[in-house]
Amino acid sequence: METNLVDAVLISSKSNVFYLSDFYGLSQAEREAYCFVTKNNAFLITSPLYEHDIKHNGLTTIIISRDNSLTKVLTEITQKESVKTIGYENTNITVFEFNQLQKINVKFNPLFIGNIRIEKTKEEIEKVRRACEIGDKVFDYILDEIKIGRSEMDIAARMEIEMRKNNCLPSFSTIVAYGKNAAVPHHSAGKDKLEENQFVLLDFGVINEGYCSDMTRTIYFGKPENFEKKVYEIVRASQEKAVKKIESLLEKNSRVDAKQIDKVARGHIISRNFPEFPHSLGHGIGIDVHESPSLSPFSKDTLAEGMVFSIEPGIYIPGKIGVRIEDLFTIQDNKLRKLTNSPVDLLVL
Amino acid sequence: METNLVDAVLISSKSNVFYLSDFYGLSQAEREAYCFVTKNNAFLITSPLYEHDIKHNGLTTIIISRDNSLTKVLTEITQKESVKTIGYENTNITVFEFNQLQKINVKFNPLFIGNIRIEKTKEEIEKVRRACEIGDKVFDYILDEIKIGRSEMDIAARMEIEMRKNNCLPSFSTIVAYGKNAAVPHHSAGKDKLEENQFVLLDFGVINEGYCSDMTRTIYFGKPENFEKKVYEIVRASQEKAVKKIESLLEKNSRVDAKQIDKVARGHIISRNFPEFPHSLGHGIGIDVHESPSLSPFSKDTLAEGMVFSIEPGIYIPGKIGVRIEDLFTIQDNKLRKLTNSPVDLLVL
Repeated sequence: METNLVDAVLISSKSNVFYLSDFYGLSQAEREAYCFVTKNNAFLITSPLYEHDIKHNGLTTIIISRDNSLTKVLTEITQKESVKTIGYENTNITVFEFNQLQKINVKFNPLFIGNIRIEKTKEEIEKVRRACEIGDKVFDYILDEIKIGRSEMDIAARMEIEMRKNNCLPSFSTIVAYGKNAAVPHHSAGKDKLEENQFVLLDFGVINEGYCSDMTRTIYFGKPENFEKKVYEIVRASQEKAVKKIESLLEKNSRVDAKQIDKVARGHIISRNFPEFPHSLGHGIGIDVHESPSLSPFSKDTLAEGMVFSIEPGIYIPGKIGVRIEDLFTIQDNKLRKLTNSPVDLLVL
Repeated sequence: METNLVDAVLISSKSNVFYLSDFYGLSQAEREAYCFVTKNNAFLITSPLYEHDIKHNGLTTIIISRDNSLTKVLTEITQKESVKTIGYENTNITVFEFNQLQKINVKFNPLFIGNIRIEKTKEEIEKVRRACEIGDKVFDYILDEIKIGRSEMDIAARMEIEMRKNNCLPSFSTIVAYGKNAAVPHHSAGKDKLEENQFVLLDFGVINEGYCSDMTRTIYFGKPENFEKKVYEIVRASQEKAVKKIESLLEKNSRVDAKQIDKVARGHIISRNFPEFPHSLGHGIGIDVHESPSLSPFSKDTLAEGMVFSIEPGIYIPGKIGVRIEDLFTIQDNKLRKLTNSPVDLLVL
């Protein structure tokens, strides 16, 4: 609070509310709860739908409704506790909500807490690791189900059923892309049917106890030509170079500059005369699929102890092919540790 | 546009972008696309991840990136087309985003488009109806799987696997609540195991082609006592009274005042000396699980042709029991039509 120069903070983003209170809720899209933390108290503010259900990390529960609005509740607390300044998530509160909050006689300051979750505890990393383990299981399972004539949607559905059998939901809509479809990094699984001699790109993740995994494998169905093998090998080497770079910096106890890692991987692909990927090399992951740190050309982050992130270079040739390899890593005890364990060598079915 | 007194509109909410452009994207939580509509042009603005993939209802695609930001793109278009005023979704744009947009030399007016999707086309209703049909199938399937000793989470998982087998994902996290757990309307499926002589509340829905279903059934496992049968019957009759009221108003071509419908159902429960439910009688549904119209004591909506909404009264006695029955309805050809078709009489397993 001191660095933010505020007397209290209002947390509204679903992920930060979960982080602070363990409140998960039902809806991704709707506002279901807030945390409000003053110098003396911590409150979970939610709707009557969750009354009688709430023991959340020792927070005091307040139920809001039409007659007892958020504005009214915050007015009472701020008066009672002489709060003059509230920090709020300006990247999450809408203009409409902000206008409502203006009725409270305090000053609102934007709160820069985008990365409070950047350094994970052992327990958090274990939840991601377990999500990765289930991801590996789903990958292993689906290899036997990739058959000629089956659509991308069919394969995606089979993968998501397998996730659910492991008590997990997908962390995002599973990507299955055949052949040229994989040249679109966020292609949605469609009706195209698998034919011989194509790459099959699978990008997917699961949510385990509120924490996400994310991995990509590109396998070959049929008999790959030399060009295809070459593209795959450049992507694999690009990832390996990033990994080696992090390892060597950690060993020397040097700063692991995230944008330098992006540059190493990206540079390898450019040096082989292939187009650079139109996305970051990697992203932090945890409660959100995408969170801090960022491994991009513009990143100011340093990769450090307790962080969890992806390394996912790719080569995309529009109308032709797409190859991406993505694994999750963490830094523990000053060592880079891989959380996904499926093989990265080109798999030919 | 005329009623909003603007030259152009910026659509940012995921649901409205999908409604206008068919762009669905991968993430619920992140901003992946905008629609920008001027008097002369309609644009879909998205990221390089979706390049080479985009044919969206004839909209012109613009790719944004760090070097070609939303602000820069909108500045160019507004200058070229002499746009002076932009309507924006103030219930969706964050304070941070709004501050970025201020760099553009135009006036921003809040846009009241919360209910542009309130009246559905035949095609949209058909998508919801098909979602309901799959919901009915899932309910039918799960009845055989409700067995002593099985946890709420186990039943929820089985239901979501069945949804996925029907090429659908859940429209929200499936609620399974045994006995007293059902007294919390939004209880999350937990580890409690099924015992004899309990209500089992199932509240769930699926997404079919981007459109949601939502239904609740409360069945009895064991031998219900008279009190339990009475509670169930009051909830069932409450729903029936709301349905009959709508039907009679439609028949007389009278205005169907949504808050009056809520009052009829709520009043029936109060008249039997049970506590009123701590939620609305119903909500509109479509691309979002909750959208316009609202059937609540404070609603100003009129239920009319093409609307799709739930009717879901309940009785909740904290620490004891909870019963809710929820079906989806639409008004077509001035008639109330039920979209969910599972029986509403008390089912005893």
